[in-house]
Amino acid sequence: MPQPHQADGPAQHAAGRQLPAPRTPSPRDAPPLNWGVIAPGGIAGSFVDALHTHTEQRVVAVGSRDPERARAFADRFGIPAAYGSYAEVLDDQRVDIVYIASPHSAHFAHALQAIEAGRHVLVEKAFTRNAREAERLIEAAGERGVFLMEAMWTRFLPHIDVVRQVLDSGLLGEVRTVAADHGQFMNPDAAHRLFAPELAGGALLDLGVYPVSFASMVLGPFASLTAVGEKAFTGVDGQASIVVTNESGAHGVLNTTLFARTPTTASISGTHARLEIEGDFYAPATVRLISREREVLDSYVPAQREGGLCYEAAEAARCVAAGRLESDLMPLDETLRVMRALDEIRRDLGVAYPGE
Amino acid sequence: MPQPHQADGPAQHAAGRQLPAPRTPSPRDAPPLNWGVIAPGGIAGSFVDALHTHTEQRVVAVGSRDPERARAFADRFGIPAAYGSYAEVLDDQRVDIVYIASPHSAHFAHALQAIEAGRHVLVEKAFTRNAREAERLIEAAGERGVFLMEAMWTRFLPHIDVVRQVLDSGLLGEVRTVAADHGQFMNPDAAHRLFAPELAGGALLDLGVYPVSFASMVLGPFASLTAVGEKAFTGVDGQASIVVTNESGAHGVLNTTLFARTPTTASISGTHARLEIEGDFYAPATVRLISREREVLDSYVPAQREGGLCYEAAEAARCVAAGRLESDLMPLDETLRVMRALDEIRRDLGVAYPGE
Repeated sequence: MPQPHQADGPAQHAAGRQLPAPRTPSPRDAPPLNWGVIAPGGIAGSFVDALHTHTEQRVVAVGSRDPERARAFADRFGIPAAYGSYAEVLDDQRVDIVYIASPHSAHFAHALQAIEAGRHVLVEKAFTRNAREAERLIEAAGERGVFLMEAMWTRFLPHIDVVRQVLDSGLLGEVRTVAADHGQFMNPDAAHRLFAPELAGGALLDLGVYPVSFASMVLGPFASLTAVGEKAFTGVDGQASIVVTNESGAHGVLNTTLFARTPTTASISGTHARLEIEGDFYAPATVRLISREREVLDSYVPAQREGGLCYEAAEAARCVAAGRLESDLMPLDETLRVMRALDEIRRDLGVAYPGE
Repeated sequence: MPQPHQADGPAQHAAGRQLPAPRTPSPRDAPPLNWGVIAPGGIAGSFVDALHTHTEQRVVAVGSRDPERARAFADRFGIPAAYGSYAEVLDDQRVDIVYIASPHSAHFAHALQAIEAGRHVLVEKAFTRNAREAERLIEAAGERGVFLMEAMWTRFLPHIDVVRQVLDSGLLGEVRTVAADHGQFMNPDAAHRLFAPELAGGALLDLGVYPVSFASMVLGPFASLTAVGEKAFTGVDGQASIVVTNESGAHGVLNTTLFARTPTTASISGTHARLEIEGDFYAPATVRLISREREVLDSYVPAQREGGLCYEAAEAARCVAAGRLESDLMPLDETLRVMRALDEIRRDLGVAYPGE
């Protein structure tokens, strides 16, 4: 818990009214790795595009069960190798690190396969379907000595580094309330993966993981979690509202839904001041520091709004180059804690995925 | 539940991208009544000032247990009669309607006394300490045939009439998520009424009643309520986070705290569009209509930000002049529902007031 007012000289006072600059290194400076991509869907396209536009990372192989799909993706992004299986990507000796972009339901199997092939792995969020799968992946990566990270891209963005520094500085005083929401309107369509129970669809793993992970970053381990939910027509979680607390009695008030486009903002209110992050808080966004007297003391405006996935790739590349097996910015312990929270929310909602 | 798309002609479509003008009549046009004020504290000062500045209402008497306090208040606002008791205010035959501005713990006794004296009554929010007291006041007012209303001033403000019209029109589609918060930083001070259990202090009756009442207005009767809380150092409720649902499965996600100044915003997210109300949502505030595609379609900016308490007084005066015993804008049934919700929240928090 930050200790406000420990030093209250003029320098401290001035610092208390300003936001720090982000310490985030340029993604272009990260040591280049050779990436393999597993499952060339929409998010994989955004990822590869961000890498090619904003980093020196090289995507050297893509794999899909459908060879034509792999080929079309490779052609679109100028990727040298397109494979009709995931195993071939893992066998390609040029590949240093594998990016797993398959549906949630397949994250565990695909990541495990990559780990067992001795590849470093970046796994799309939500990391797995449940905490048990997450534990097993973490264990396997540890045994095999490969790098493993959840692709919770928000954690690596410059505006979140501003937030981290503010939290560390004690500028807000004691944090008492964190609020975050992530709602998108999805047309009710039984064929869409977000409504498919067998693909671990629902609001939670796709959208809800953002506010839950954000609250975990700000509050630390949750001391309690209370969730209320509504199912969608296919039985997946359509909406969830969640209150978490930490050991200090601070609250996180969170909402996620497939039923409506919500403001997707976040705020962190402390005894001295608060931060407000504009929507979409999980993407590069403006952060405002606001006093108790409602004065906007300072704002951080992101220099770059596009290609935000480049930061997670750069972080992975830096860790791998340094021989590290996990990132301090999204530690495996915390990924596991978030997965346990998601499990608990689903238990409260009575939602289970077939075959988990 | 609003039925979107029932009529989708060009006029309807145009209407769907614009906010309506508020229908709120000018407070100055309300028939003048003679008001008596019971308990001349801070809120009574704001009330009388709003009346004198923005309406034709006349404050003719003020009463306090402390005659000097009553006299000072009367001098400050040019009120003809200052009494050293509440009974004298009620005995003053010029008084048409009494405004109860005492601490929450005394609302019931003071309002009952006024009702029994045959006076119309406007009771500050929160209406009473609990639903049982609210029921008894409502019953007493019905028996005596006098007007009774909770002074939930937000309900009578022009921007809330814009919100009401949007909800009635179905412009948002089906409402799925309502969010509202009200947190203020209060210095921990055992002598302050907000920390005093015997005065029914705590966040809930003072601040939390706003988001709860707002959610009730938008969602209708709550089907479920789940609350998580933290007590302040004196044992009153210092912080509460609350999830409510209605029969349609829409969620209200609410927070109140004495520990931090929160954004105090509100939003209503529907399947078609959403409304965002800037902080302070409960005071005259700007309302934005935002599409699913994140486009700000229209904004309503209040013409007047000051003196917002004049609207509730004008509504009371119009109702009394029309011989009505309650207001459609803040019906007694709904006041009672809100009090029941507050009781339930306190039950979840384990907070009871001495002597209730």
